[in-house]
Amino acid sequence: MRAEIISCGTELLLGHITDTNATYLAQSLAGLGVDLFHVSQVGDNQERVVGTLSRAFERSDLIIMTGGLGPTEDDVTRESISALLGEEMRVDPVLEAELRARFKGREMPERNLKQATLIPSAQALPNPRGSAPGWFVHKDNTYLVAMPGVPHEMFRMWEEEAIPLLAAHLGGTIFTRLLRVSGLGESTVEERLQDLIHATNPTVATYAKQDAVDVRISAKATTAEEAERLISEVELKARGILGDHIFGIDKDTLASVTGSLLQARQQTLSVMESLTGGQLASTITDFKTSSSHFIGGVVSYSTDLKVQFGVPRETIERYGVVSEETAIAMAKAVCAQLGTNFGIGITGVAGPEELDGKPVGTMYIAVAGPNGVVTGMGPGWRASRSDNKRIAVNTALNLLRLYLEGRVRPK
Amino acid sequence: MRAEIISCGTELLLGHITDTNATYLAQSLAGLGVDLFHVSQVGDNQERVVGTLSRAFERSDLIIMTGGLGPTEDDVTRESISALLGEEMRVDPVLEAELRARFKGREMPERNLKQATLIPSAQALPNPRGSAPGWFVHKDNTYLVAMPGVPHEMFRMWEEEAIPLLAAHLGGTIFTRLLRVSGLGESTVEERLQDLIHATNPTVATYAKQDAVDVRISAKATTAEEAERLISEVELKARGILGDHIFGIDKDTLASVTGSLLQARQQTLSVMESLTGGQLASTITDFKTSSSHFIGGVVSYSTDLKVQFGVPRETIERYGVVSEETAIAMAKAVCAQLGTNFGIGITGVAGPEELDGKPVGTMYIAVAGPNGVVTGMGPGWRASRSDNKRIAVNTALNLLRLYLEGRVRPK
Repeated sequence: MRAEIISCGTELLLGHITDTNATYLAQSLAGLGVDLFHVSQVGDNQERVVGTLSRAFERSDLIIMTGGLGPTEDDVTRESISALLGEEMRVDPVLEAELRARFKGREMPERNLKQATLIPSAQALPNPRGSAPGWFVHKDNTYLVAMPGVPHEMFRMWEEEAIPLLAAHLGGTIFTRLLRVSGLGESTVEERLQDLIHATNPTVATYAKQDAVDVRISAKATTAEEAERLISEVELKARGILGDHIFGIDKDTLASVTGSLLQARQQTLSVMESLTGGQLASTITDFKTSSSHFIGGVVSYSTDLKVQFGVPRETIERYGVVSEETAIAMAKAVCAQLGTNFGIGITGVAGPEELDGKPVGTMYIAVAGPNGVVTGMGPGWRASRSDNKRIAVNTALNLLRLYLEGRVRPK
Repeated sequence: MRAEIISCGTELLLGHITDTNATYLAQSLAGLGVDLFHVSQVGDNQERVVGTLSRAFERSDLIIMTGGLGPTEDDVTRESISALLGEEMRVDPVLEAELRARFKGREMPERNLKQATLIPSAQALPNPRGSAPGWFVHKDNTYLVAMPGVPHEMFRMWEEEAIPLLAAHLGGTIFTRLLRVSGLGESTVEERLQDLIHATNPTVATYAKQDAVDVRISAKATTAEEAERLISEVELKARGILGDHIFGIDKDTLASVTGSLLQARQQTLSVMESLTGGQLASTITDFKTSSSHFIGGVVSYSTDLKVQFGVPRETIERYGVVSEETAIAMAKAVCAQLGTNFGIGITGVAGPEELDGKPVGTMYIAVAGPNGVVTGMGPGWRASRSDNKRIAVNTALNLLRLYLEGRVRPK
């Protein structure tokens, strides 16, 4: 099967954004064993989209489009497909009802109605994360998947709607399992899994995500049982190699894994963070039931505030605000002040300027709990402000996870 | 002048790397006033590179290729150009001498010699940062620039070699300005700017971003002054239509705009948030100098914690934890506890479950400051948990901005 990606959006051609959607889809196709031969970016211009699409229909079996499904005039993906295939776009009553439900209480601009249209060859791909459903088109032995350009809407639609539909049409089934890895870089993971990565069924591929490295195992088979058996064999090998670094599968996040562990034990968590400025608490509360174990947090962006919330001033004066000792004091203080079983403290230098004589990227993390304290540091390299925040959050939650799983010894 | 970018490399089609070279070139072309209509990525396969290149010669005046200039067999850019144009590649003695000089003391693999070749229509673009010179081809009114894929080699070659060569053929310049809009949806912005959007120079287009809606105004002119004049006229009209909803231009964010206003007045800010779970503080601290005005925050995920941090229990009991009154009490309490000039309180229902009898998506926001309190609500529709958090953060920072700019009346 020859695949082709077409990314629509004038902002791509002005260099305002980079086409990371294509990278994501390319990785996914490689994992599925589908050959990707062409990727192109085209502006919001119907003539040029139709031209690109027409060429794609000549040379590819699977065309994946992203972008151009918004409600405005310069969103021309549906119109282009409809024009090329000579099929009329009609409002689908079910899609219209769903769309209007999103606007309850507000008036829906009539132009939005085009987001509820279909052509005879298309079926809708649900999009619970946004207002634009995708299109799944099957015509003349060619499959076309059109999805929104907003990455988190597209990721879900591709994985949960498009792949299963494609698998069903292609007469087989593709099963995929993600192993989620923390504490190792992508190239290290790839190196360690070298032997598995060169296999063909299941295929194994690694992806660097914001919160983890993912190892994707994809198996093709005619039955679910067969696919499951193929995947399980490889998963066992990967687990033997990566050990404690695997913190979960599929949709698990460090926040969901640690949250579930705490909830199962009826224990609670609080945090005191400076470097990460609220991002640790925000990540913890992305887990939907977090209010049962997460009591709250303090973003102590000033030294006085750390002291006000129970960090001994002498600790800060003696060891510095960016130090392991201060991180430990923060974790213990927030536990005590908020009356929780576990507390996390993070201090460090997000950048762009050094702080307290410490270079950008320095980070100290402490987790205080019923059995004592464990500490960790970042990777020790200089990254951007936003990367430093993200790395510190991941490191802290992974440390909490290792503590909860009994894989580190508190002191 | 119609430009097209072709990026060569199988690693792009496997998703191992993202085509940031295309983004860089797209930005540069926009700045030069060159219309970029097509970008494509193609693997290291001569037949497919020739196919893509042939199409580019039909439709574009300027073709920019990156990648495929290495010494190995799978580097096929020179071979593809040569095949398409029917011109033979010959070793150029000057290039050969330069190449051999790079290998001083070591034997040069003979396959590297292809990096010293030219065709009659090509001249070499020097590459002091690597072993592969570029090609500048002019044939049949089409210009073709072929450069290495290694970014830092390509950046220099483009800026210092290719642009000066092309400059004689470029007749003008283009300027772009972004107006950043808060408090209106993309389709509403587009509807209000309808008349401007149908103009051709400057062009006006809207983009939905995570933190705002962007209105991009782009003007082409022969001089910078003329472009600036064209943009200013349209900007004035857009500002007349969108008024207070425009909070900044270009790289401004709500966090940078509010942060700069507070810093200019030497005033400080703190926050108490439950719905947003730390994301408000995290967004504020994304602004790199935020430590000069942001003292800290409290993520009060439990009612007890709100009370512990100064929210009167009777307010919560009387009005509910999700209420305007509680948001106001949170804003006032954090101001008092942390000793800041301004305080923001956010309470609401992120989802997925309703809370305290209030539906998902309910949000109450209060900003307390020296002149009193202003309050706001979300858009009042049900969104995903992560969208509710994001919407609440944007609404809160926009409310603070309106307060600081004197555009809302506190009470």
